[in-house]
Amino acid sequence: MSTQIPTPTPEDKFSFGLWTVGWQGVDPFGPATRPLMDTVHALEKLAELGAYGVNFHDDDVIPFGSDDATRDQIIARFKKGLADTGLVVTTSTTNLFSHPVFKSGGFTNNNRDIRRFALRKVMRNVDLAAELGAKVYVAWGGREGAEYGASQDTRVALDRMKEAFDLLGDYVTEQGYDMRFAIEPKPNEPRGDILLPTIGHALAFIERLERPELVGVNPEIGHEEMAGMNAAAGYAQALWQGKLFHIDLNGQNGPKYDQDLRFGAGNVRGAFWVVDTLLAGGYDGPVHFDFKPARTEDEDGVWVSAAANMRNYLILREKVKAFRADPEVQAALEAAKVPELGVPTVAEDEGWKGLLTADLRDPEELAQIGGGFELLDQLALEHLYGVR
Amino acid sequence: MSTQIPTPTPEDKFSFGLWTVGWQGVDPFGPATRPLMDTVHALEKLAELGAYGVNFHDDDVIPFGSDDATRDQIIARFKKGLADTGLVVTTSTTNLFSHPVFKSGGFTNNNRDIRRFALRKVMRNVDLAAELGAKVYVAWGGREGAEYGASQDTRVALDRMKEAFDLLGDYVTEQGYDMRFAIEPKPNEPRGDILLPTIGHALAFIERLERPELVGVNPEIGHEEMAGMNAAAGYAQALWQGKLFHIDLNGQNGPKYDQDLRFGAGNVRGAFWVVDTLLAGGYDGPVHFDFKPARTEDEDGVWVSAAANMRNYLILREKVKAFRADPEVQAALEAAKVPELGVPTVAEDEGWKGLLTADLRDPEELAQIGGGFELLDQLALEHLYGVR
Amino acid sequence: MSTQIPTPTPEDKFSFGLWTVGWQGVDPFGPATRPLMDTVHALEKLAELGAYGVNFHDDDVIPFGSDDATRDQIIARFKKGLADTGLVVTTSTTNLFSHPVFKSGGFTNNNRDIRRFALRKVMRNVDLAAELGAKVYVAWGGREGAEYGASQDTRVALDRMKEAFDLLGDYVTEQGYDMRFAIEPKPNEPRGDILLPTIGHALAFIERLERPELVGVNPEIGHEEMAGMNAAAGYAQALWQGKLFHIDLNGQNGPKYDQDLRFGAGNVRGAFWVVDTLLAGGYDGPVHFDFKPARTEDEDGVWVSAAANMRNYLILREKVKAFRADPEVQAALEAAKVPELGVPTVAEDEGWKGLLTADLRDPEELAQIGGGFELLDQLALEHLYGVR
Amino acid sequence: MSTQIPTPTPEDKFSFGLWTVGWQGVDPFGPATRPLMDTVHALEKLAELGAYGVNFHDDDVIPFGSDDATRDQIIARFKKGLADTGLVVTTSTTNLFSHPVFKSGGFTNNNRDIRRFALRKVMRNVDLAAELGAKVYVAWGGREGAEYGASQDTRVALDRMKEAFDLLGDYVTEQGYDMRFAIEPKPNEPRGDILLPTIGHALAFIERLERPELVGVNPEIGHEEMAGMNAAAGYAQALWQGKLFHIDLNGQNGPKYDQDLRFGAGNVRGAFWVVDTLLAGGYDGPVHFDFKPARTEDEDGVWVSAAANMRNYLILREKVKAFRADPEVQAALEAAKVPELGVPTVAEDEGWKGLLTADLRDPEELAQIGGGFELLDQLALEHLYGVR
Repeated sequence: MSTQIPTPTPEDKFSFGLWTVGWQGVDPFGPATRPLMDTVHALEKLAELGAYGVNFHDDDVIPFGSDDATRDQIIARFKKGLADTGLVVTTSTTNLFSHPVFKSGGFTNNNRDIRRFALRKVMRNVDLAAELGAKVYVAWGGREGAEYGASQDTRVALDRMKEAFDLLGDYVTEQGYDMRFAIEPKPNEPRGDILLPTIGHALAFIERLERPELVGVNPEIGHEEMAGMNAAAGYAQALWQGKLFHIDLNGQNGPKYDQDLRFGAGNVRGAFWVVDTLLAGGYDGPVHFDFKPARTEDEDGVWVSAAANMRNYLILREKVKAFRADPEVQAALEAAKVPELGVPTVAEDEGWKGLLTADLRDPEELAQIGGGFELLDQLALEHLYGVR
Repeated sequence: MSTQIPTPTPEDKFSFGLWTVGWQGVDPFGPATRPLMDTVHALEKLAELGAYGVNFHDDDVIPFGSDDATRDQIIARFKKGLADTGLVVTTSTTNLFSHPVFKSGGFTNNNRDIRRFALRKVMRNVDLAAELGAKVYVAWGGREGAEYGASQDTRVALDRMKEAFDLLGDYVTEQGYDMRFAIEPKPNEPRGDILLPTIGHALAFIERLERPELVGVNPEIGHEEMAGMNAAAGYAQALWQGKLFHIDLNGQNGPKYDQDLRFGAGNVRGAFWVVDTLLAGGYDGPVHFDFKPARTEDEDGVWVSAAANMRNYLILREKVKAFRADPEVQAALEAAKVPELGVPTVAEDEGWKGLLTADLRDPEELAQIGGGFELLDQLALEHLYGVR
Repeated sequence: MSTQIPTPTPEDKFSFGLWTVGWQGVDPFGPATRPLMDTVHALEKLAELGAYGVNFHDDDVIPFGSDDATRDQIIARFKKGLADTGLVVTTSTTNLFSHPVFKSGGFTNNNRDIRRFALRKVMRNVDLAAELGAKVYVAWGGREGAEYGASQDTRVALDRMKEAFDLLGDYVTEQGYDMRFAIEPKPNEPRGDILLPTIGHALAFIERLERPELVGVNPEIGHEEMAGMNAAAGYAQALWQGKLFHIDLNGQNGPKYDQDLRFGAGNVRGAFWVVDTLLAGGYDGPVHFDFKPARTEDEDGVWVSAAANMRNYLILREKVKAFRADPEVQAALEAAKVPELGVPTVAEDEGWKGLLTADLRDPEELAQIGGGFELLDQLALEHLYGVR
Repeated sequence: MSTQIPTPTPEDKFSFGLWTVGWQGVDPFGPATRPLMDTVHALEKLAELGAYGVNFHDDDVIPFGSDDATRDQIIARFKKGLADTGLVVTTSTTNLFSHPVFKSGGFTNNNRDIRRFALRKVMRNVDLAAELGAKVYVAWGGREGAEYGASQDTRVALDRMKEAFDLLGDYVTEQGYDMRFAIEPKPNEPRGDILLPTIGHALAFIERLERPELVGVNPEIGHEEMAGMNAAAGYAQALWQGKLFHIDLNGQNGPKYDQDLRFGAGNVRGAFWVVDTLLAGGYDGPVHFDFKPARTEDEDGVWVSAAANMRNYLILREKVKAFRADPEVQAALEAAKVPELGVPTVAEDEGWKGLLTADLRDPEELAQIGGGFELLDQLALEHLYGVR
């Protein structure tokens, strides 16, 4: 392949959480290694690197517990930063996990007073999100879960989770906001087990809501890989169910703590297939990165890794397109009968009755046919390696 | 606790797959270590141990490719075995994974001829299942998946999976069978990644079927634990969604190959919470074991482990009941506000408007309240240990 | 079994890291939920609960960067606390992971100045440890590792690690300290991959040191289980190699973030076999707990969980003894030929020559013999459940 | 990079197990999908593809239980095949896991008669290996382990394992064979836990043998990744300890069943670093592939995947060389102080005394220095992608 990798532009719709480049490096075994980053500085640098948008938790921009005057002042400055840089706010979200009050969750905290506080915190930030033009409201319930089986009744917790989304659905509808919600699943960390641990669990839950059309998913590659899931297959199912409202791209090396590596710097083959799935599925929302620049880095390292997320996406996008356009690949797909999966198994007017009496091919003979998958995969790998 | 563990009786509704006690020990590194077990012998032994029912893949009872006369003869002998032992057939299922023709799946094989063969194999066995009185038809799509990203288009595979279940839904409906389907999720093995890898993915998929009411899930503890999932939480979500049609109990030690240990002999704490979830959720179907007696064992070991599955369930059932009845536990649940999760977050006539203006408690103050979960969990653990 | 569980006493040699009960709850997604705990208060409470000893990182007791006067004052107060409570200092260790200077490791930091600082920090604290009577110096190199393959040359890092332990070996020898070192392996977190990731890697490394006799391991159950290892088997190999210098007991639920659950509250079956291994192997050092009381808890929860570690150990110790004393178990062990493994395969005067010409039993016949492991394991499980 | 990928030649020293291309596809859920492959045909095809050598388990070439005449005849034909193709036998190994007699292990089977049979089986095949010119004898103890804690006493099992290797060491020494042993670690499958589960455990064990110089390791990438280990770091430690006697390259996607994907087709980033480690460490033994062509494939797929292993190694070798030669990479390594790790921490004549009184740099200041690892890793990734 050509090594001509395009430069990121706003048309690529790349977006970053402010908490990503702003991550100071606190982890379970040590405090911050980087100073607090000024929000407007982050906007300027991201714009310079070619980003299109940003998103944030309420507390990323406005410190928890700020009074109204401070809040207004911060928001005004933030809006000016957006206007100056041309960045848009693609999504917003509420931090229901950092403050000690949420130590056992927000929407599903056993303590009803905390649930009420959590819900109001979200509503208040939904207003801000609407004001700033966010079209998707992300909901990561990082502390909705438990370490121990008796701490929380899962079925009742799902009732409360449903209550929360039903109420928020009423809220945005009645307020006239053009906003949908995207649930971000995660299997564990910081809780032993988190409610709605995978894309599948979230998709299933959504179907029991009063306004399921308002709620989709925001899958994060790393979260799925923490559960040993094939992220691309999960994204594909979310697309199939019409629910891929937003995406969180990053990197992870299998089941362990949440690494939030920059996109590309984990399971590279998985990343290739995620991009392929997004392109094939016509996903056209923001291409969002939810990563953490390594705690070892200074600010220079932060921007190197931020830029690398976008660059790696563009590299993989080129590779995926080249793979799909390669005549040898197309022949191998044909040989592996991949397109034949698109043909319904039973003819339109056949039905089960027709199938019951149809002439079928001999299974022993069908069993002889090779899959052709090793060739197909090797072609994909060579595109990834850039040697075709 | 009393060490008086009841003896299994048919009222406990314990059931076994014929393929479990009949497993001969073939694994990726070695052939059978036990001779083929006669089906009627298996029925007799299981009845003797206190089982209630059995289930089977078509090929477990009738060798693949048997002619009609052989098939009829085998079925007649099997029915007599059932009548003689009083065992019932609780579920049935189709083997769409052993024969080489299914090496790349059945319902979602890229080869349409194979898909047609698979579907007809299922219909034919559904007839037998109905004739034998099975009320649930289990569907484990063990080879519906891929090792490589390009081998199968996941979205198209979900289309074909939907087509299959829609057609089967028509079939049982139009045939007047009183039968529902239960999809058994599994993350991987024998394929690199399997379609519908967890309870969540299966529950979500079902919602897109033409007759979702006919389809639920049959979660296996080990399969969920292979993905690092909390099995009890998964069972709870399946119950919450009204979809726990059947269960597969066994044991597993975390993400590795599918161990199929006898129930109790893996993650014991997980087993305790699964039983608690089943009792609390009112699950009243068969208590089914899908395990493999270790390949190291002779036939004596097979029956020891078969009996132990039931015994361990009864032990855990006693423990769970004792835990829930213990006044100290009830006080600890109250202290941990577990019952308070059952109270809606927003009062019936309050709505989001009421919540927006309600007086809320100070979060700093709420943050001081301890969860009380360590105590609660220690009480549970002591019930498990039998020291309370 | 009898439910008479003994009360912990100093004779049981239970010890706690001050950082365990003192953990304030900082995790990657939130700040402290509990106030700083006074060290002397911790000593008093632990003594009251029946503990025998404590241990600490230098920075747990003396804040990083304290001047000498402050340091002396703190140490004096700490010594008084020990004297007042009768607790002993069983081990000590250096914090080479929290301060940002160690963000990329201590002994194997690419930056030589940081390595020098780290080594001197250790020497200084070894003096204090010796003064306080610690016999084992624990070394957990939590940040000795990398996220990325090029960041650190593993072979060169092992050279530096060896240099550090060789120098420390010289130091304690020449200072005349009666002190040995215990390396604590961990596979990952907070680094993507940590040097010496398992018991095995640490044991192998030690053999290349100048004074291997001075260095052993301090395996933590949870760390081994994060790598899917069988912790008991690891402890057994450490004993076999004469290197089990200290132990860290706690709980974990498989490969995920480091949970540090209280002992017993993770993989209970694993905990049973760890205790069995310790008793059988004659381990007679301190029984140390390295756990974190859940972040959801207030101080009451801290003490509940601290006490539960000891209680669970005592419960399991009783169970293990009862298991080993049970005649039915002994018969099952015999049937499974477990004692026969103790008989050398080749007779003393036989050698390979004798074996080459000896009459051997027919393998087909030997293959028929059942293992008897399902029965044996079910007996163990029933002891764990307390129903035998 | 140039896309000029060299063609494999015998100088590259690529070797294949006969059991790899000859794998018929038996897995826990289905029988063979491919016919038995003639050994000489395999030799011819491998030679044609550019391989240098082969290796085999005794039973791969000579069916278990063959009489001497059959054995001699098979060996003669095999030798002729070698002579005709020019392939060499690089290593040999004994199958102590397939036959039911080994269902609970060979060297550490509780049954002494089985241990004796196993040892003699190895000696007999060592003779053949010597005759065929193999310089390394691989030992994979796939069934040396247990599912349950009481089935086998780990310490005693290690005694027996030591006895076996000590005796084999005597055997090759006294027979005058120029042969060393390479232990292949694996964490689990087909046993719940296998003895010597990782590179580290095997390296440590070797140190307790009577002739440690005769025994090293044969690490398999996939086996290490099943335990979540960084394979390259493990290979590096084996090199550091002077024990990398042989290598098994293949692919795996994290902790799950043993996938044995072709090399390159799993964790590609991991594969890149393994090749880098081998080149940097001067490994000059055979480059051996231990993979399984997917069960979905016919014979064409077998050869596609066999060839792809070699091609992927060559691709990665080119990339690694280009990475190490790139001046930008060298500058980044310098900036990240990677070479500085090679400088001893303490000067030659300094010792701990010198370090105690030396002037050290201020830690607060040192803490400000960024690691430079994100840049370095991005450069590596771009070499992998082929865009530099």
